[in-house]
Amino acid sequence: MATVEKWYEDYAIGSTRTTTGRTITEADIVLHAGQTGDFFPHHMDAEWMKSQPAGQRIAHGTLILSVAVGMTAGDINPQSMSYGYDRIRFIRPVFIGDTITVAAEITAKIDHAKRPDEWGYVHELVTVVNQRQETVLVLTHIYLVNKRTRGPAAPGPLA
Amino acid sequence: MATVEKWYEDYAIGSTRTTTGRTITEADIVLHAGQTGDFFPHHMDAEWMKSQPAGQRIAHGTLILSVAVGMTAGDINPQSMSYGYDRIRFIRPVFIGDTITVAAEITAKIDHAKRPDEWGYVHELVTVVNQRQETVLVLTHIYLVNKRTRGPAAPGPLA
Amino acid sequence: MATVEKWYEDYAIGSTRTTTGRTITEADIVLHAGQTGDFFPHHMDAEWMKSQPAGQRIAHGTLILSVAVGMTAGDINPQSMSYGYDRIRFIRPVFIGDTITVAAEITAKIDHAKRPDEWGYVHELVTVVNQRQETVLVLTHIYLVNKRTRGPAAPGPLA
Amino acid sequence: MATVEKWYEDYAIGSTRTTTGRTITEADIVLHAGQTGDFFPHHMDAEWMKSQPAGQRIAHGTLILSVAVGMTAGDINPQSMSYGYDRIRFIRPVFIGDTITVAAEITAKIDHAKRPDEWGYVHELVTVVNQRQETVLVLTHIYLVNKRTRGPAAPGPLA
Amino acid sequence: MATVEKWYEDYAIGSTRTTTGRTITEADIVLHAGQTGDFFPHHMDAEWMKSQPAGQRIAHGTLILSVAVGMTAGDINPQSMSYGYDRIRFIRPVFIGDTITVAAEITAKIDHAKRPDEWGYVHELVTVVNQRQETVLVLTHIYLVNKRTRGPAAPGPLA
Amino acid sequence: MATVEKWYEDYAIGSTRTTTGRTITEADIVLHAGQTGDFFPHHMDAEWMKSQPAGQRIAHGTLILSVAVGMTAGDINPQSMSYGYDRIRFIRPVFIGDTITVAAEITAKIDHAKRPDEWGYVHELVTVVNQRQETVLVLTHIYLVNKRTRGPAAPGPLA
Repeated sequence: MATVEKWYEDYAIGSTRTTTGRTITEADIVLHAGQTGDFFPHHMDAEWMKSQPAGQRIAHGTLILSVAVGMTAGDINPQSMSYGYDRIRFIRPVFIGDTITVAAEITAKIDHAKRPDEWGYVHELVTVVNQRQETVLVLTHIYLVNKRTRGPAAPGPLA
Repeated sequence: MATVEKWYEDYAIGSTRTTTGRTITEADIVLHAGQTGDFFPHHMDAEWMKSQPAGQRIAHGTLILSVAVGMTAGDINPQSMSYGYDRIRFIRPVFIGDTITVAAEITAKIDHAKRPDEWGYVHELVTVVNQRQETVLVLTHIYLVNKRTRGPAAPGPLA
Repeated sequence: MATVEKWYEDYAIGSTRTTTGRTITEADIVLHAGQTGDFFPHHMDAEWMKSQPAGQRIAHGTLILSVAVGMTAGDINPQSMSYGYDRIRFIRPVFIGDTITVAAEITAKIDHAKRPDEWGYVHELVTVVNQRQETVLVLTHIYLVNKRTRGPAAPGPLA
Repeated sequence: MATVEKWYEDYAIGSTRTTTGRTITEADIVLHAGQTGDFFPHHMDAEWMKSQPAGQRIAHGTLILSVAVGMTAGDINPQSMSYGYDRIRFIRPVFIGDTITVAAEITAKIDHAKRPDEWGYVHELVTVVNQRQETVLVLTHIYLVNKRTRGPAAPGPLA
Repeated sequence: MATVEKWYEDYAIGSTRTTTGRTITEADIVLHAGQTGDFFPHHMDAEWMKSQPAGQRIAHGTLILSVAVGMTAGDINPQSMSYGYDRIRFIRPVFIGDTITVAAEITAKIDHAKRPDEWGYVHELVTVVNQRQETVLVLTHIYLVNKRTRGPAAPGPLA
Repeated sequence: MATVEKWYEDYAIGSTRTTTGRTITEADIVLHAGQTGDFFPHHMDAEWMKSQPAGQRIAHGTLILSVAVGMTAGDINPQSMSYGYDRIRFIRPVFIGDTITVAAEITAKIDHAKRPDEWGYVHELVTVVNQRQETVLVLTHIYLVNKRTRGPAAPGPLA
């Protein structure tokens, strides 16, 4: 975990990165239920899920989302903060034992409406695939990033 | 955790619900770092954060998101599945010891483009506030819900 | 998790409720050993248990008890507090992968000895079954519940 | 954790043992909520509890019960199995930061009704006190123990 | 967990002890990654490890080390403190489902260089074997132990 | 977490690296006790520790060791494997709330005795300091690293 200064001007649309893989385990689901309080039988009841279309327990959407975002947390960039996410979509269920990998691509750069000289939004499309290369989740991670040319200090991180 | 059948027609725009509160603890942050692998010093280094604008460690955005979504997981509704989220925004940081409460409001109902007789999207605006009634996070939770009048079976849950 | 006022007078002997299921996982046992400090080989040593009558690791009794009680924690009732349990009996072992379901039945209502006009005990028989409908654990959960007619305030919850 | 053979005849009514102490932490409560799914605000909402008689969050009853039983799990005794508990009573709340210690005393020995030559029940009164020496929980732990004189093999442990 | 006073003079070179077994689970690895932040694919990516010589995920070295040291934490000895470890060697990988057992032998006693009348070092060779009796890890645990004849008080524990 | 090929020849004696900080929390200690089974009162009993020289609970040595090693797990290097550690010494206790940082320096390079043309050992001195820049733990991490000139394939990682 290194600290790397990267300004708005340094992000190039179309640039990509990918992560190593991570196997989603039964323990991950148990821990995520425990963290969120979501003990829905879709995640916790192997017996009942045998009778459902999926045939087995499925991972919480917020588990895959959280792990995927965590997997893309690479270098610390003091010039950037996480602003939010757009268009999170659950495409396919993730089962116990599936291994996910994350690809991320810079898809847009947008000036801040009120302070275009100082800040801009960088959009990174995050795509999570399983071991069969099937997409299971997509989201757009939005960063608020300082411009080199900025004047006053940017706000600190919120999350 | 009860099972309650609720069809698309049963959702009323403007209807609201709120949760009890939950205090976000240091243990939650430690566990979320452990689940996601995000050990950024913003969440883990109390000493360094003293020198930052926030002055103290802040919760991961995905922690607050996951807990808030979990807090709104009430009854099991076999006619509804979680389709995704739109416009997740981190408004204010959540600190250790803050207590969050979640309010949710049905804000839109939209027919499914290809199968409008069978399915529709229900949008629920999720607003997370802290103990000072300050909004810390918002998101729109999108459910894909069966209509009473539908013909063929809907797909099972994905997350 | 809703808050529902329910007085002593509102409990009816013979009324029942059941829960959804929950699969007891290896992770649950590992976490329970970690919480309690009970690392007995009955729970932790798969190799040795092959040579024992059970043939495999068994769940801690307090794990099944704690999960079962948690599964029956439905609505919040400000008029009731958990007073204790009677006659907890371990009937059959629970193995990794077993799915438990809990049934609960109000079996007795007893006036408080010293303040019969204000409080009463409600007994709920909790029966935990596995996926083969075999009973694995029983206990009687005793609640101290306010009567509608009560005078002075009841004590707050103890656990 | 040693293995020590102890038969029914070896237990003496009145014999006692005590444990070292253990501080109940916020992390314990968070983990126990996560294990049991009991996220009642009594345990999780510091803000709301300020307005309640207790004034602060209280530990789950099953947490203190599980930890206390775990603290008394000393030597492994192949001649004994945990049969159940009687008369569990929550006497006082346990708060975050309280340190509990457990005292246990053999209070009764009872022949097994159907096989009195082979088995007997040993009752151990478990008393949990806090750092002010106030009793917070009591229970009677019942063990089914082999007699030295027994004929056929006893059943294996159930929990 | 009993408190047993044992002085330097009480340790005999060549004396040995062994533990019960403990199965290393997938949950242990997930929890250890979460505690340490080491999410290397060797531990977390089942898919990729299929293509590696080991063929499957392997436990973190620090997990086996920590668990093994924990398994040898028997009685509390107020006259002894953990000083450090020498020559930790990872001999064979530990896989999910392997059951480890620990043997420990007192191999050396060495007077403290500056205060030989008061303190001495006791070396305990810790050997961890799997269910096939293959050694997977060795280390020498060094204790600093008070002598019966000592004058001034020894330092308290450091870890 | 990037994959970076680094051969024996690429390591330079005297080269250093440092990490960001990490605050050791009560939750870390609770989780480490739970993972290792070491519930010694030095780590778990705040009340008793008030009467001891340290005055408060101290972190497990294996916790600090594991976290420190995890904090130095930077890039994945397919040409290197963790061989073991030498001379681990606990210098000062780590208390709840202390923030540790890790510095690492390559201190030695040693040819493999039997296959000097293929492998060599790289020694990295790991020094853990707290927020007062006091050293709390040192160890030498030994890596077995492939040489560029090597012939047959090296063994896979063991831990």
